[in-house]
Amino acid sequence: MKGYIICTGTELLLGKTLNTNSQYICDEFAKLGIDVFKVVTVGDNLERIKAAIAEADEDVDIVFLNGGLGPTEDDVTREALVSYLDIEETIDSKIKHRIEKQTSYQVLPGDLKVAMIPKGSKVFYSEAGVAPGTLIESKNKKYFLTPGPPNELKYLMEKELIPYIKKELLADEVIFSKTLKFAGIGESKAEDKIKDLIKSTNPTIAPTIKEGEIHFRITAKGQKKEEAKRLVDEYSHEVLKRLDNYYFGRDEETIEGLVAQALDSKKLKVAVAESCTGGLLANTLTNIPGSSNFFDRGYITYSYEAKKEDLGVKESTLLQYGAVSENTAIEMVEGVYAKTKADFTISITGIAGPGGGTIDKPVGLVYIGFKYLDKVDVATRTFTGDRLMIKSKIVKFILFEMYKRLKEK
Amino acid sequence: MKGYIICTGTELLLGKTLNTNSQYICDEFAKLGIDVFKVVTVGDNLERIKAAIAEADEDVDIVFLNGGLGPTEDDVTREALVSYLDIEETIDSKIKHRIEKQTSYQVLPGDLKVAMIPKGSKVFYSEAGVAPGTLIESKNKKYFLTPGPPNELKYLMEKELIPYIKKELLADEVIFSKTLKFAGIGESKAEDKIKDLIKSTNPTIAPTIKEGEIHFRITAKGQKKEEAKRLVDEYSHEVLKRLDNYYFGRDEETIEGLVAQALDSKKLKVAVAESCTGGLLANTLTNIPGSSNFFDRGYITYSYEAKKEDLGVKESTLLQYGAVSENTAIEMVEGVYAKTKADFTISITGIAGPGGGTIDKPVGLVYIGFKYLDKVDVATRTFTGDRLMIKSKIVKFILFEMYKRLKEK
Repeated sequence: MKGYIICTGTELLLGKTLNTNSQYICDEFAKLGIDVFKVVTVGDNLERIKAAIAEADEDVDIVFLNGGLGPTEDDVTREALVSYLDIEETIDSKIKHRIEKQTSYQVLPGDLKVAMIPKGSKVFYSEAGVAPGTLIESKNKKYFLTPGPPNELKYLMEKELIPYIKKELLADEVIFSKTLKFAGIGESKAEDKIKDLIKSTNPTIAPTIKEGEIHFRITAKGQKKEEAKRLVDEYSHEVLKRLDNYYFGRDEETIEGLVAQALDSKKLKVAVAESCTGGLLANTLTNIPGSSNFFDRGYITYSYEAKKEDLGVKESTLLQYGAVSENTAIEMVEGVYAKTKADFTISITGIAGPGGGTIDKPVGLVYIGFKYLDKVDVATRTFTGDRLMIKSKIVKFILFEMYKRLKEK
Repeated sequence: MKGYIICTGTELLLGKTLNTNSQYICDEFAKLGIDVFKVVTVGDNLERIKAAIAEADEDVDIVFLNGGLGPTEDDVTREALVSYLDIEETIDSKIKHRIEKQTSYQVLPGDLKVAMIPKGSKVFYSEAGVAPGTLIESKNKKYFLTPGPPNELKYLMEKELIPYIKKELLADEVIFSKTLKFAGIGESKAEDKIKDLIKSTNPTIAPTIKEGEIHFRITAKGQKKEEAKRLVDEYSHEVLKRLDNYYFGRDEETIEGLVAQALDSKKLKVAVAESCTGGLLANTLTNIPGSSNFFDRGYITYSYEAKKEDLGVKESTLLQYGAVSENTAIEMVEGVYAKTKADFTISITGIAGPGGGTIDKPVGLVYIGFKYLDKVDVATRTFTGDRLMIKSKIVKFILFEMYKRLKEK
């Protein structure tokens, strides 16, 4: 199946709204095995939307329109579609009824704009908003109209459109997919190890890079689910065999989620002492619902005084080796352990930049202390990027290291 | 001037990468007064890129291509453009030299792909990467080729392309714009107060919402800069008159940046005690380069023990009023002050959810203690949203409150 996506909205062309819908739709289509060959964004302009609809190639099966179904004069996506297909509009009585119920005053004709649908279309009702999704089949293509607000789009996709597409449009073919996630290895090195597999067309293996992680999504098509699943499993097995050392999770799993899960199930407590990351590690761990089960506390010891007073780092250590040193990292992690007796303690001291770097200690240099099961060790790394990227890479690295240690014992 | 943007990259159509470049380019074009009439995203496919280039309307002035300039076989954007325009390619000697200098082994012909440019094009060199930006004029249009990595695109836009476009392509028309930023007021309320002004066509006033802030961008065109600037100033003045209480900054200013600036210039130190925000406030403040000038330290006292041991919160307070209470917030802020003597101390205790809420103390409830110039006060708020939204809204609220207090004295 071949898909073509048209997003409408002048605000998108003004650069003031990030088009997250387009990524969301592409992602869901990829999971369904629908090949999206083009995404077009046009303003709220009837003629331009019509022109974009007309541009769909001969062999496109699904034209997916998003946005422009609201009540205002700007919203003309449905008008453009019915004008292009030369079909009539009609009022959907169920939506009309909902609008009348919601409106305290006399309903004016303009209020009913949202209740208008292309005549003969299938209507998908929403509980996230008034505007429905609709599907009209014409000219050998399936035209979907969907509302622009992300929550309304997601509601309709999850509850109505994806199940419908799976059942009615993809009935003769089953899609199965799985995403394997890796960390601690560069993109090109990871791809190189499986470059023969990436050439496969069924299943397909699509790589993506995300903040220090690399994901491979393996998608297979088949006549039956077992067949598609067998293909995916076969390739997953091979991918994992070659990249086992870097694997951490699959599908919706996140590295922080897996760390949280491991801590939770082992009933372990964590305490951290952060300098250059300034709270990002604690914030990432406490973004997980229920983190109070395993997160005891954090010290963000930015100043020399904080390192000495809160963690007991010795003045002489700071003077002799500097705040950014292996010795300071060790004293910090021992300090946070002494205070908390937490099962897993971590310390971070480094230079996030842009200032503060020297030839010996460049921007991006970081010492990370781990204390787990009475063993202390320090990792020394130099990360590249701007301040925020360096902070983020340090935290990713730590989470992966925690995960490895927790998995071992 | 009319612009048309083509983003290339199969990863964009697979939904695994969010197309932030397209928003960035649209935003910069809007500031330049270039009307973007369409954005198209296509995969790394020569024929499809050529088709997308060919689709540019008669009256488009700028065709801006982004992505697909890298060294791999997938990267075919330049090839598509030269094939469409039927012009030759040539090797840029400066870039060739850079590649040879960087490569330790014998340079192979494939390595020089990035040094290829359309013959006769203007070259914009980059310090953020090897791939340059290029401009070739043909068929009454200006075709730009730009690299896909966001940092390389931004570097070229800021340092080379925007200044060039302003000077060479927009010489007969001047654009001036200014963005005013507000917080602590809802979108519809803010728009309502200036709804008569929003109707204006020169200047235009475009609103945007961003994480608890509302921004109004005022853009005017004129024959001379003074003329455009006068129009913008006139409207800015009127907008500020009506929304003065909620104004915090303009253009590139951020609320955390302004807080940092105020702290820095007053030579004040900050220390924070966070519970439910789990380090997000500290992380936001320390995202600012040079924050070690004003950020002393943070305590993330998630557990009861941490609140007692690190901040001296009384056991009886926790038992009688609970960890989420005004009394605990006061003892926390006094505790962090006692430890640090920092000029501005803040405490946060609340329920970020999704669990932990009760009828009396629902999810989203938060008590925030401020101690500044020896005065302690507590703000009580209930924020809505999921866990991450609640954390983020609390921190935005605190930054705006800090800003107001620092501005007063």
